[in-house]
Amino acid sequence: MAQLNPDHIVSLFLTLGTLLAVAWIFGEVAARFRQPAVVGEIVAGIVLGPTVLGRVSPSAFAYLFPPDGPIALSLSGITNLALVLFLLVAGMEVDLSAAIRQGRAAISLSITGIAVPFTIGLVAAWLAPELFGMEPDAELSLFALFFATALSITALPVIAKTLMDLHIYKSDLGVLIMAAAVCSDLAGWVIFAVILGLLDQSDTSIYFTIAATLGYWVVMLAGGRWAFNRLLPFVQAYAAGARSVLVLAATVALFGAAFTEAIGIHAIFGSFIVGVAFGDSPHLRQQTRQTLNDFVSFIFAPLFFASIGLGADFVAHFDVGLVLAVTLIACLGKGLGCLIGGRLGGLSRRETWAAAAGLNARGAMEIILGLLGLRFGLIGTELFVALVVMALFTSLISGPLLQRILRPRVKRRVVDFMTGKTFLGSLTANDRDGAIRELCAAVCPGVKIDPDRTGDAVIARELLGSTALGYEVAVPHARIDELDGSVVGVGLSRDGIDFDAPDGEKSRMVFLLLTPARDVSVQLEILADIAQRLADRSLREKLIRAPSYTEFRALMKTAPSDSG
Amino acid sequence: MAQLNPDHIVSLFLTLGTLLAVAWIFGEVAARFRQPAVVGEIVAGIVLGPTVLGRVSPSAFAYLFPPDGPIALSLSGITNLALVLFLLVAGMEVDLSAAIRQGRAAISLSITGIAVPFTIGLVAAWLAPELFGMEPDAELSLFALFFATALSITALPVIAKTLMDLHIYKSDLGVLIMAAAVCSDLAGWVIFAVILGLLDQSDTSIYFTIAATLGYWVVMLAGGRWAFNRLLPFVQAYAAGARSVLVLAATVALFGAAFTEAIGIHAIFGSFIVGVAFGDSPHLRQQTRQTLNDFVSFIFAPLFFASIGLGADFVAHFDVGLVLAVTLIACLGKGLGCLIGGRLGGLSRRETWAAAAGLNARGAMEIILGLLGLRFGLIGTELFVALVVMALFTSLISGPLLQRILRPRVKRRVVDFMTGKTFLGSLTANDRDGAIRELCAAVCPGVKIDPDRTGDAVIARELLGSTALGYEVAVPHARIDELDGSVVGVGLSRDGIDFDAPDGEKSRMVFLLLTPARDVSVQLEILADIAQRLADRSLREKLIRAPSYTEFRALMKTAPSDSG
Repeated sequence: MAQLNPDHIVSLFLTLGTLLAVAWIFGEVAARFRQPAVVGEIVAGIVLGPTVLGRVSPSAFAYLFPPDGPIALSLSGITNLALVLFLLVAGMEVDLSAAIRQGRAAISLSITGIAVPFTIGLVAAWLAPELFGMEPDAELSLFALFFATALSITALPVIAKTLMDLHIYKSDLGVLIMAAAVCSDLAGWVIFAVILGLLDQSDTSIYFTIAATLGYWVVMLAGGRWAFNRLLPFVQAYAAGARSVLVLAATVALFGAAFTEAIGIHAIFGSFIVGVAFGDSPHLRQQTRQTLNDFVSFIFAPLFFASIGLGADFVAHFDVGLVLAVTLIACLGKGLGCLIGGRLGGLSRRETWAAAAGLNARGAMEIILGLLGLRFGLIGTELFVALVVMALFTSLISGPLLQRILRPRVKRRVVDFMTGKTFLGSLTANDRDGAIRELCAAVCPGVKIDPDRTGDAVIARELLGSTALGYEVAVPHARIDELDGSVVGVGLSRDGIDFDAPDGEKSRMVFLLLTPARDVSVQLEILADIAQRLADRSLREKLIRAPSYTEFRALMKTAPSDSG
Repeated sequence: MAQLNPDHIVSLFLTLGTLLAVAWIFGEVAARFRQPAVVGEIVAGIVLGPTVLGRVSPSAFAYLFPPDGPIALSLSGITNLALVLFLLVAGMEVDLSAAIRQGRAAISLSITGIAVPFTIGLVAAWLAPELFGMEPDAELSLFALFFATALSITALPVIAKTLMDLHIYKSDLGVLIMAAAVCSDLAGWVIFAVILGLLDQSDTSIYFTIAATLGYWVVMLAGGRWAFNRLLPFVQAYAAGARSVLVLAATVALFGAAFTEAIGIHAIFGSFIVGVAFGDSPHLRQQTRQTLNDFVSFIFAPLFFASIGLGADFVAHFDVGLVLAVTLIACLGKGLGCLIGGRLGGLSRRETWAAAAGLNARGAMEIILGLLGLRFGLIGTELFVALVVMALFTSLISGPLLQRILRPRVKRRVVDFMTGKTFLGSLTANDRDGAIRELCAAVCPGVKIDPDRTGDAVIARELLGSTALGYEVAVPHARIDELDGSVVGVGLSRDGIDFDAPDGEKSRMVFLLLTPARDVSVQLEILADIAQRLADRSLREKLIRAPSYTEFRALMKTAPSDSG
């Protein structure tokens, strides 16, 4: 067996470590700006790719990401594995009955979402082939078909990750967008197979591809789903390995991926459908989902998304006019198609726009298609770059657009309102009113409200009924007119303070909760979040002993709760 | 960037899927025979390798495991990544203070455990070089050094996996064996570096390798450990990604692996020490460990261990005499070395034998060394094969030997004694004595005891005090003289049966527990296991509604408990 030699191993690990680290950092930056992490991960690839690192330090780029040879092939193997496992996870999270409920709207969205940009692309390429960068020797009909396809295809993985990052993957709208994306993307690959056939690059006929695809879906969603649902309890009951179901899912996903790749559509469809078939079983344990989800979303998915940007130089051969024209026509076509489809499918205006923003994302597929166009002399480097830039641009704006259109209501968590300045590791007061005053003195200056009047309001609320939750936690609170945003102060007391708790225990953790009077729901959300996070006794013991604000915050943040 | 083409992707996924599936099946078979799963995983590789599949179906073998090209390189990249992440997990599970406590014994074990087989190998090769397969043109001193090294090196990954599979990784003895294995293996790689230097294959000097290794260990175990312990709460408190610590650990492990590989020892040491430094932090969450552990142990580790056997044909060029001689001398040398080291280190006889059985495992390292020996004309194919067979044989017997020597006391679980025949999905009786008689009638015939007398004994016990645990569960039980092994009957009752429970609730799940009179502890262990597994209310609801024995067993088996 060919093995990587030690030098290859060193550079492979440096390559993977660098990709992972930079993707993580950019993903965190994106999250700071309330954008999906996938935007940061794609940008990380552009930064590490020929576009930036390749210019700043060509030698570092050539060492980490050589264009050929063992490292390039290993990396390609690893990112392909990552992609297949990510689609398995995405499939597992699909609620099949919800997807079927959204069926009509999804189908009309995907039909017009493909047909309209395809037609626009076809007409545009036909009317002005030179403008859009057809090579002089290429055949016009083939070029037009190619160009139209490149404008129409969506990027299933990017859409799935964006919806997950924004926590709307499982919402009705998320399900709708995913269902439409799966249909569009499948249609795209079938057209791709047609083009391959015309280019004489495929030994499988297009009819075979379509028949095999349909066959695979029916077999998996009917037979496979039935079989997994019966197999899972059996494996859980009799297998020695506690996580054997993980292995089963991964194995079937790999075989499914190999099958769909072999019949001429992409490997991602194979593992995605395996995920759907598995995920639908009520016997699948939460812990199994969680393990696969955490590992794949945090390690594998970023590797794949960052690898997209490594593929091309986005500055060389950059023809501004062409890039603008291609991007504009792509967004217009997809937007118009989705608007028509949304109207036909009976969607609301907001849903329609959200679907358009989601389905507008294009990705790795355009790069594969573009490379093929280049190789067969259909297009020149300028159009290739324009297509790739368009793909990345539409992927990158998809998340921010969705974010603007939907403003997904994220449940507010207590950690979002805690700061180091309003954390008192050791309260000096040993009675209720004293503790409240002490916390007000720490919290109020930062939000420019009067500590004394605030303290009066909190104490007045306390007199109406104790705010102690029991188990040594009290949550004195008040709604304050002048506040714009909520703020939480935390005080710890080793000896405990009598808050007249229902269980008679003294309170050793006091959360002072000040919320704006006009936002009635935030108080309840934070209160519920505190109660949930503090449900575990051993965690409360650790919190009371936390030596610093950072550790207190870390413990609160990683405590189990609905809102993660 | 070079990409795998669609044909490569199809075969890569088929290759990975096949490896994973076969390794899983053989691992399960090994577990059935109470052997560590790693034994099955290594055998899976031999079966899929040139030895078996290569003979049975050369074309399938050539397709799945081509000797060269993109698939071979991708697979090598993936198994190397798997190995590094497995060592990260193994490192995380190390209890550093326990390892330091075992220091003296570990060091004396590793010194004699290397020195004795090395000396024996050196002398044997010097006295009878032709007998052991030296090539005619090779230099005797170099050959002797090579042969001695090949006999002495241990296989850290195999030892770690074996100890984990047998659930003794964290015991004092497990820590001792791991500490000794790390020291021996490090010494082995330093000798390897010397040989590389003599063969003129290395540009780094041996002194540099030793100094850099020591430097890396000191930096990681002092500075790194300190830094991670401070960094973890910070990342947990402020990072947006809930599992960012996973990414941090994986990234640092990859860089550490690249570093140690670059300085001339193996990549595994780099990520292992990163694991130790991370795992020592009390801030590392159980959920993070669990995710990494589950994914890596169940998906990545089997891929790596199965890949070992793919490397060589164990039948061609098989010289029985040579194989026997090499294996015998290897086991004798390692055994003798460990016996002396164990005596010097103050170990008991049982501990010493266990350490010898553990440290005797050799693995992938011998294959790498052997390939090098071949390439430089030091040895012929016969000796290469003999070394590889010896390495696999010692790896394979290590687990079974440990199992025999230690007979690790596995906590007995209720599922080990449940069968489909003694499961009554719906009890017809609706009173206590009737339910007990009904369960006895189902259970007793299988173990050839009298149902009536057994029922009397169980009811007599019940009269001394109710066996209902509360929360709708009763566990009537009796110790029976004639029984050789324990047996558990399960009866469900929708309406519930009055077992005079402490909480006044009727019992809807009845576990009849019959244990041999001479084994006093088994009754208590099973009782405690039932109580632990049934602690969760929603699980009890699911159990009562379980439509079949398989689903009941699956639910019981995946319920959280101490004994997994």
